[in-house]
Amino acid sequence: MKTSALALALAVLTACAGMAQAESNVTIYGVLDAGLIKNSGGTLQVGKGDFNRLGFKGVEDLGGGLKATFRLESRFQPDTGTTEANGQRPLFQGRSVVGLSGAFGAVKIGRDLTAVQDPASDFDPFGFQTVGTLDAVTGNYMSDTSTASSGNRFSNAVFYSTPVVHGFQLNISVASKEPLNGVPIVKSNPYSVAATYGGGPLSAMLGYERATNEDTFLTLNGAYQIGAAKLLTSYSRFQRVNRVHDTNWLVGADIAVATGAVKLGYGQVKPENAGASRQASLGYWHALSKRTMLYTDASRRTGAGSSGTAVDLGIHHTF
Amino acid sequence: MKTSALALALAVLTACAGMAQAESNVTIYGVLDAGLIKNSGGTLQVGKGDFNRLGFKGVEDLGGGLKATFRLESRFQPDTGTTEANGQRPLFQGRSVVGLSGAFGAVKIGRDLTAVQDPASDFDPFGFQTVGTLDAVTGNYMSDTSTASSGNRFSNAVFYSTPVVHGFQLNISVASKEPLNGVPIVKSNPYSVAATYGGGPLSAMLGYERATNEDTFLTLNGAYQIGAAKLLTSYSRFQRVNRVHDTNWLVGADIAVATGAVKLGYGQVKPENAGASRQASLGYWHALSKRTMLYTDASRRTGAGSSGTAVDLGIHHTF
Amino acid sequence: MKTSALALALAVLTACAGMAQAESNVTIYGVLDAGLIKNSGGTLQVGKGDFNRLGFKGVEDLGGGLKATFRLESRFQPDTGTTEANGQRPLFQGRSVVGLSGAFGAVKIGRDLTAVQDPASDFDPFGFQTVGTLDAVTGNYMSDTSTASSGNRFSNAVFYSTPVVHGFQLNISVASKEPLNGVPIVKSNPYSVAATYGGGPLSAMLGYERATNEDTFLTLNGAYQIGAAKLLTSYSRFQRVNRVHDTNWLVGADIAVATGAVKLGYGQVKPENAGASRQASLGYWHALSKRTMLYTDASRRTGAGSSGTAVDLGIHHTF
Repeated sequence: MKTSALALALAVLTACAGMAQAESNVTIYGVLDAGLIKNSGGTLQVGKGDFNRLGFKGVEDLGGGLKATFRLESRFQPDTGTTEANGQRPLFQGRSVVGLSGAFGAVKIGRDLTAVQDPASDFDPFGFQTVGTLDAVTGNYMSDTSTASSGNRFSNAVFYSTPVVHGFQLNISVASKEPLNGVPIVKSNPYSVAATYGGGPLSAMLGYERATNEDTFLTLNGAYQIGAAKLLTSYSRFQRVNRVHDTNWLVGADIAVATGAVKLGYGQVKPENAGASRQASLGYWHALSKRTMLYTDASRRTGAGSSGTAVDLGIHHTF
Repeated sequence: MKTSALALALAVLTACAGMAQAESNVTIYGVLDAGLIKNSGGTLQVGKGDFNRLGFKGVEDLGGGLKATFRLESRFQPDTGTTEANGQRPLFQGRSVVGLSGAFGAVKIGRDLTAVQDPASDFDPFGFQTVGTLDAVTGNYMSDTSTASSGNRFSNAVFYSTPVVHGFQLNISVASKEPLNGVPIVKSNPYSVAATYGGGPLSAMLGYERATNEDTFLTLNGAYQIGAAKLLTSYSRFQRVNRVHDTNWLVGADIAVATGAVKLGYGQVKPENAGASRQASLGYWHALSKRTMLYTDASRRTGAGSSGTAVDLGIHHTF
Repeated sequence: MKTSALALALAVLTACAGMAQAESNVTIYGVLDAGLIKNSGGTLQVGKGDFNRLGFKGVEDLGGGLKATFRLESRFQPDTGTTEANGQRPLFQGRSVVGLSGAFGAVKIGRDLTAVQDPASDFDPFGFQTVGTLDAVTGNYMSDTSTASSGNRFSNAVFYSTPVVHGFQLNISVASKEPLNGVPIVKSNPYSVAATYGGGPLSAMLGYERATNEDTFLTLNGAYQIGAAKLLTSYSRFQRVNRVHDTNWLVGADIAVATGAVKLGYGQVKPENAGASRQASLGYWHALSKRTMLYTDASRRTGAGSSGTAVDLGIHHTF
């Protein structure tokens, strides 16, 4: 009897799972982040810490370990409700890819972050978020120069990632030579190659990229976990077609505390023929749950380029 | 045995609820409303009664009565498929907010209806919908004059609502002094304050607002339920920066009948230095379900401004 | 006991179904299709085979066989993430309709494919997808000439379909005389009428349409299933307002094989005062599942208009 009831219960549970499954082939996900930002000499503004996203993604099991995957991701400004760059960017500016994954790795086609840009944000203690981000991991480099904004993605591209072997993974992105936003890609295919490693306390990446205008970018990044503290460092060299290059580096730490995390970092962007611009940042991110946090950050820029301080206070919600 | 089976069943039910829950942190909602509209002297058109919306919202329980909330709302034209104002408005023109709610009330940040504009539509018997809407609750006033359309919202704002105490609630919206659509906000922060009451047969609101261009708006609205009939009235004064003001008022009734509702109203908008424009409206909204209705309305405008009659016939579907 | 446990299980199952149901009134659906395309004389491009879509739809049971339905469908370019025509088209370019269905048939209002255009793609062996599509079912005809793109839909329209009786169905679309994209519709209402039949091995349609600029279009299409092969043919006549007409025809086959389908076809578009342009196409579509396939196609255009060959290789994923 008991077993029969149990069996029934399990059968029902399976059926329920089926229903929930059948509900949709699509998962909606996203980030809503908004807060107050004050730059020295500027008025108090409502802005964002992280990039705001609304996405639709799905995975279909094709059997034999083969899966079909897709992902569409809008990005928008929470303070005005427009898509990024005041509506100038694509509806699915974030990502627009479809592909297959399996024992061979994963291949995607469409528009996405380049192999180098995708993991790069892991090596800024602020993850490219809030006024704390040091903007020194990629500095002034843009993968796609056909537009004034959104320069860290390839459109018209194929993206391949190997399986992870002993913590190592190789990622390659190659774009077509199609004109982009009316800007022709003159000679060669833009491409991006990144080798990443993650094992135990150490994670690292080595990346090289050629942009749509044939600028090149070389970066080496590392992170090491010591107790509650993750120490981060990044070095990169951005070589322009005209041979002038920038050198960028940062050091930082992401320290877990009982109620969230303390972030700190220092970074520099140094154009070959100009003075360096440096930034020091400090932040405290207070976790309300795994999905929601309050954050406050302060940063100070010095040297060439825009000097001054910035502080923020905001809320970050993941769904 | 019985109890064991029952216990199992309950456990399974809980698990199922979990699944359905896990399914998504997002609820999709919206309104699709389209119909035929005939204005005197114009051709028969396909248009809308209500504002069409596609929204994404979520609530996360943070424990201790604290909740994280977000809401993204697109608005569009059902007859052409474009976003409002032929694609000129933001993707999330309706709302784009994230915030927290709890014992202290609710605070949101981003873009939303102002404290005064949000409840105002409750005091037009037609709820700002169909050709019946009297357009006299807010008249010619716009909270945000940086754009020719969509003037009843603040971008770059913080929105706070107190808890409801004995039916009373206070709502406050304050926008930053950031330029909007290239239009600078010269002197002071735009703000909106509304006190609302709902208890027994009576509901009412008193609101005051200062727009992005420092126009001001004062409104007093009331509704009283007598049997099947809800009687509504609104009075407002729109003071322009140049000191010229409009005076607006309306009276109306929303009468529940077995198959839906009968709506009627009369309103006036009177600029200080010009003749009044008046409108009389009559409508019947036929409920097919809680989510779907057919509606037909007729209105007649007289006096200064656009005179003439308008009739509509449409379907309103909520999802 | 056993029955009691069973009864409980069924009760729970019903409750679960309820939950899954309650989850949402909306179903998200779509197509993501991207691949490599090479045209003779052109560079290798990343493009699409099918039209990429993200849609939101719902059905509400109103009782007595009556249902409320809605559908919103975005279309976009997977290679760049923009909406179609580089963001020039409506957000819900695909469809934006709400309506009722029941014993009387189905009526929708808003924007959708015309009665003639909706079933037309069934008679191209490539279904208007990939470089294989013969472009000969509708040829140069456009239902809506108010825009350079997306000419096979009516905006501001009412769409009615009869019930299917003995395999026959009549579909009628009528658009208003409103100006579209600033282009006035001068004299008469655009309309579209299509009679469709599907029964046993035979399916066919006869359609007639008058476009927004009063061009007219007549088409007769048929398909016949013989074993694994569906044979298709189409004939149409596109009469311009200036009396000059095109004559279009195609023959093709869609042959089911164990692993997917083989497609082949030949078609011609012949303007009255110009030479014909012809296309021959061959394709193999490899099914990975009911929702996902890989495809490769080749086509050769000859005669007037753009001559040359095209080949593609891509992935098509439905969700």
